[in-house]
Amino acid sequence: MDNKKIVILIQSADQRGILAKVTSWFYGQGFNVLHCQQHTDDYEHVFFMRLELDMNDMKGSRKELADAFGSFAKEQGLNWSIHYSDYRSRVALMVSKTSHCLYDLLSRNAEGDLRCEIPLIVSNHPDLEYIANQFRIPFYCFPMVKGHKEEQEAKVRDLLKRFDIDLVVLARYMQILSEDFINEWQGRIINIHHGFLPAFQGANPYQQAYDRGVKLIGATAHYASSDLDQGPIIEQDVVRVNHEFTAAGLREVGKDVERRVLARAVQAHLESRIIIWKNRTIVFGLER
Amino acid sequence: MDNKKIVILIQSADQRGILAKVTSWFYGQGFNVLHCQQHTDDYEHVFFMRLELDMNDMKGSRKELADAFGSFAKEQGLNWSIHYSDYRSRVALMVSKTSHCLYDLLSRNAEGDLRCEIPLIVSNHPDLEYIANQFRIPFYCFPMVKGHKEEQEAKVRDLLKRFDIDLVVLARYMQILSEDFINEWQGRIINIHHGFLPAFQGANPYQQAYDRGVKLIGATAHYASSDLDQGPIIEQDVVRVNHEFTAAGLREVGKDVERRVLARAVQAHLESRIIIWKNRTIVFGLER
Amino acid sequence: MDNKKIVILIQSADQRGILAKVTSWFYGQGFNVLHCQQHTDDYEHVFFMRLELDMNDMKGSRKELADAFGSFAKEQGLNWSIHYSDYRSRVALMVSKTSHCLYDLLSRNAEGDLRCEIPLIVSNHPDLEYIANQFRIPFYCFPMVKGHKEEQEAKVRDLLKRFDIDLVVLARYMQILSEDFINEWQGRIINIHHGFLPAFQGANPYQQAYDRGVKLIGATAHYASSDLDQGPIIEQDVVRVNHEFTAAGLREVGKDVERRVLARAVQAHLESRIIIWKNRTIVFGLER
Amino acid sequence: MDNKKIVILIQSADQRGILAKVTSWFYGQGFNVLHCQQHTDDYEHVFFMRLELDMNDMKGSRKELADAFGSFAKEQGLNWSIHYSDYRSRVALMVSKTSHCLYDLLSRNAEGDLRCEIPLIVSNHPDLEYIANQFRIPFYCFPMVKGHKEEQEAKVRDLLKRFDIDLVVLARYMQILSEDFINEWQGRIINIHHGFLPAFQGANPYQQAYDRGVKLIGATAHYASSDLDQGPIIEQDVVRVNHEFTAAGLREVGKDVERRVLARAVQAHLESRIIIWKNRTIVFGLER
Repeated sequence: MDNKKIVILIQSADQRGILAKVTSWFYGQGFNVLHCQQHTDDYEHVFFMRLELDMNDMKGSRKELADAFGSFAKEQGLNWSIHYSDYRSRVALMVSKTSHCLYDLLSRNAEGDLRCEIPLIVSNHPDLEYIANQFRIPFYCFPMVKGHKEEQEAKVRDLLKRFDIDLVVLARYMQILSEDFINEWQGRIINIHHGFLPAFQGANPYQQAYDRGVKLIGATAHYASSDLDQGPIIEQDVVRVNHEFTAAGLREVGKDVERRVLARAVQAHLESRIIIWKNRTIVFGLER
Repeated sequence: MDNKKIVILIQSADQRGILAKVTSWFYGQGFNVLHCQQHTDDYEHVFFMRLELDMNDMKGSRKELADAFGSFAKEQGLNWSIHYSDYRSRVALMVSKTSHCLYDLLSRNAEGDLRCEIPLIVSNHPDLEYIANQFRIPFYCFPMVKGHKEEQEAKVRDLLKRFDIDLVVLARYMQILSEDFINEWQGRIINIHHGFLPAFQGANPYQQAYDRGVKLIGATAHYASSDLDQGPIIEQDVVRVNHEFTAAGLREVGKDVERRVLARAVQAHLESRIIIWKNRTIVFGLER
Repeated sequence: MDNKKIVILIQSADQRGILAKVTSWFYGQGFNVLHCQQHTDDYEHVFFMRLELDMNDMKGSRKELADAFGSFAKEQGLNWSIHYSDYRSRVALMVSKTSHCLYDLLSRNAEGDLRCEIPLIVSNHPDLEYIANQFRIPFYCFPMVKGHKEEQEAKVRDLLKRFDIDLVVLARYMQILSEDFINEWQGRIINIHHGFLPAFQGANPYQQAYDRGVKLIGATAHYASSDLDQGPIIEQDVVRVNHEFTAAGLREVGKDVERRVLARAVQAHLESRIIIWKNRTIVFGLER
Repeated sequence: MDNKKIVILIQSADQRGILAKVTSWFYGQGFNVLHCQQHTDDYEHVFFMRLELDMNDMKGSRKELADAFGSFAKEQGLNWSIHYSDYRSRVALMVSKTSHCLYDLLSRNAEGDLRCEIPLIVSNHPDLEYIANQFRIPFYCFPMVKGHKEEQEAKVRDLLKRFDIDLVVLARYMQILSEDFINEWQGRIINIHHGFLPAFQGANPYQQAYDRGVKLIGATAHYASSDLDQGPIIEQDVVRVNHEFTAAGLREVGKDVERRVLARAVQAHLESRIIIWKNRTIVFGLER
């Protein structure tokens, strides 16, 4: 895929002509709109938009574009963010003992499908260090010592800053983050929950699914929120099961769903396709 | 599909050689086993089995077969039931105001896909009588009068007896049945819940799904239990949605899932493919 | 769903600022854009667009809007069509002996999900007249007499004109239409093929699927083209099968896929969501 | 999953009482049947069966069991094979330049989900050696020199013998194997075709899919046959696409389908769940 795009995400109160005004503004600046997606929430009267521009049309600097559009946006009352497809987001993976999501994200990135940097892997257990080594990625292990969660998290948050991280992916990190941590990283932590939310919240969802005798099991990727498993959902999927599956069997087939749900969510975030609105997500063209 | 089969459903404590004993017994009686499905729950050590025999191998009467197998089953400690594929189950449909599941079941049966009799449709609202008329099926309307639920249910239960009903299908019947009703019809009432259980129990699941911002919506067919939406699940399915769907939009696409989930569950029951075990179902070869 | 929308479909050569120009034009005319979807084919440099406007913003007559936009479109070199959501398309259903698609479309329309008129059903066999009667829709039977295909088709085409039909749906019409017929109705005939095109073209796709031992079977809804089963594909779906399915079993489960694939395609057409481009379709927001 | 099982695969002409005879024989030998799956092809009158026995019931040696069952099977005219779940099949992966299937299989095996040995990776290109190194697996590169296919294949076949390989997996090996090679390895070579067979055979299926404008793309895992892409299908799956996908976009999303389709097929083979019959496969309980 061509890497020379500018992506603009916009959210505002709905207003007449907003689409014409925004597209005309960029046209006036000499930009060709490659792709435009827009959504209006008719209940809350909110307008959402994603624009893809051709970076080759850019005359001035990125700062100049940000300033110019910023003042236009201010007049129109738009919340916005601007993203350049040649920038590689810096992603930190946090894991515990389960390797399937870690392997999946690392190999997708190695294949060039995620287009991000993964400068470090953080864990509360030493178990998966060998995978970090396979992919030559620094591995930091901060075991959780009862009663010292704050110190442990402090070290992690420190590291994330030091490595200039843009996005944290909890790839089966089996440890609840503190409210402080989550608030500091609002909208920049993606978690994979190995169940179909809002069903099966909390621990051991596969056992819950088995006990309830469901015929489908699923996984949910969502932004972390201080309220456990209540954050904005980005992506979900399911797989069909039957009476022959034990809880362990569900866990095994569930891995496949977790893998692809998390990967799709991370990719959507990295391609600047997501706008978070209250407890929902607008995900533009995840399929594309 | 050939209609000349005998289906035997068996459940027992797991025991060595049970499979050999049962199949040998029928072989000894001159029966050819057309199809045999079996499942052992290794946790609870329970054995489940479904046998399809060729009715042409039958020498004696149905009573004789029941007696003969009955005494063998007693020795072996088997719970069992016998079903003849040339018998058409008598199914009562209960509806309120929503027509899509009613239309779907009636047209499937008209096409010969369900292979059952539908001698009556019962409703607590007059709205859908015209559909009953289209298919020339008696329609009984018993409006629910506040404080007179017992009388209303009495009339319905009366009717079900009088029409010699085998199975009651709640095809979007928006009225909770009393515990007495459900206990009397234990394992013979199939309900379609327009949500992916155990998520979105109770009223207005589509609004709940919208509020939670899920990316898939589903439907669940289950046997009615006194504990609302907690009965044994027979079948579930989902459809992908996104931020563009209003609660009304979810409701509209949800209809398709409800239709096929309910139809599959009813068909599995009518083909004697289901064994209920505690709060679970063993559904043999629903796909077949 | 609100019925007061104007839908404009646009196709043109790709050009800078086209999006801004079109949206600004409508803004200038006092229209609020409710929804805008756009697609650029970067290979063939073609631009496609679908606009939803609020009909309440309309001041003049429909003819005036058509004229005004027409001259603007001419300057810009746009191919376009205008659709009003309060107009009910007139749909003719053509069937033979299989009833599941017919039942499905009639019941969906009866439930108000298709929002169209179905003034007649045409068949080459008398078998399904009783269904037409159930829904009180005129049924016309023109048996195919060997060597008299032209007369038979002439009668059908006559009828379609007389009934002022907008769309013809071949709901399992087992008779190949002549090239003349198809050319006259270019882009206005939707056919359901009971196989996953381009696999299993021609007759008896389920037998073909069985012989090949596939693990999924599908259905394809497409616009009819003189080249059999080669027309632009609108929608496809599949269902999982296994070795236990006979060709008859495949046929039975296939019905469900045919039903929903055809219904989705017809709905997309009726909601003016489809632009045909060469042998492809751009289907805007079918899911919505 | 418990690893102490004996799996017996049986195929024979259909005959009365075959199920009773086989299960009774094992019961007589003191074996408890953990799981029994059986299928009768009513057209060709062929009987297929898969038995899982508890290895703890085994008194004699594996040779003794083979001999004893062998003579029983001879009397009954059964084709059969016996498999011990504590044996790790030795799998050779053959690749070219595409890494996603290779990464997927290696990481699944590293996670213990495939339960096989992968003693070597063979390629006709050097590109993926670094992945072999990551997983510390010997990598053999035999470039294809025009006109010297025979020598190249001779080296590969040599290696496979030397490494005592049970199964060859073509994980996107972009080179057609000779008829000799395939015949020598009949039923022991699994190939992933990046298209939904029988559609899109041969080269560049994603371009073919794009040109045809399909709405779903798929992948097919099958046993290699001398007739290209005509071998017995083991597993297939699809993913939904739309007009926005370029051929490159289809290729990218297609990777996910290829990954899981190939993994499921390999796992089914390794768990002795597959019987090949003519150009079809009976796959017992792939989902389990």
